[in-house]
Amino acid sequence: MIVLGIDPGYAIVGAGAVEYWGSQHRLLEARAVTTEAGAPFPSRLETIYDGVSALLERHSPQAMAVEKLFFNTNTTTAIDVAQARGVILLAARRYGVPVFEYTPLQVKQSVVGYGRAEKKQVQEMIRLLLHLTACPKPDDVADALAIAICHCHSAGSLMRLARG
Amino acid sequence: MIVLGIDPGYAIVGAGAVEYWGSQHRLLEARAVTTEAGAPFPSRLETIYDGVSALLERHSPQAMAVEKLFFNTNTTTAIDVAQARGVILLAARRYGVPVFEYTPLQVKQSVVGYGRAEKKQVQEMIRLLLHLTACPKPDDVADALAIAICHCHSAGSLMRLARG
Repeated sequence: MIVLGIDPGYAIVGAGAVEYWGSQHRLLEARAVTTEAGAPFPSRLETIYDGVSALLERHSPQAMAVEKLFFNTNTTTAIDVAQARGVILLAARRYGVPVFEYTPLQVKQSVVGYGRAEKKQVQEMIRLLLHLTACPKPDDVADALAIAICHCHSAGSLMRLARG
Repeated sequence: MIVLGIDPGYAIVGAGAVEYWGSQHRLLEARAVTTEAGAPFPSRLETIYDGVSALLERHSPQAMAVEKLFFNTNTTTAIDVAQARGVILLAARRYGVPVFEYTPLQVKQSVVGYGRAEKKQVQEMIRLLLHLTACPKPDDVADALAIAICHCHSAGSLMRLARG
């Protein structure tokens, strides 16, 4: 199974494609889709849509896993992140790829086995599970990989369950 | 000048295409793009993207005018409205149509001449300005027409300014 994990944003979208087979993970691609701060917002959305579409095209994933959005303090930022997330979901739909959502708590629980794990612990587990010498940067890309791994584990459990 | 006004939403997107020439307004199309409540969210976003794209295709507007988003009480709804707004802006970008944002206060000020105007007053002005027997329904469509008219006036002022 190939999963594309996405950490939504409007300046940086973290993306990570992971293959999962027989409890083994393999990194296919780790990438940050970045947009120009000075560009008109619709143009930044187009860059995100095209960047995510290219990843969907390249890896033909069976699923896209995206972080669930919450609103905290900065609502202006949150609106723009949500707008970017909209075009990411549209890209998935255009490629017929189902989308799964996870909370940060679920991701940490799944990757580290502990919902309140530190960012460093999550990144160390990503490094180990994907057999890398270092966890890919920036944090947005690491977060995307964590979400992809989280879905691999969830979907794996579902498949095991279905097989009885 | 042709302006496409949009009132963003994820269940209903209000849309209104208005032609403005020599201080005269003419309604080209008033439409609600609706999505199925039970459908997966990415599929609803696609319906919105396709619906807005069809309007852009049909009317070739010089501008899209969209309501500026604010966050009030229901943040879950707000996230979904913002995601829908993202694909609307992407559609505008795909058709090379510049996007202009207005606050509800600016819209009322521009259409009625009074920022705290009631919904009914706004709808009555739309009816008069567009020479209709009744203001188009539902409210989302009326709001979209008000935003379009607001941009007609704003752009008109800018043009007059440019001409000296």
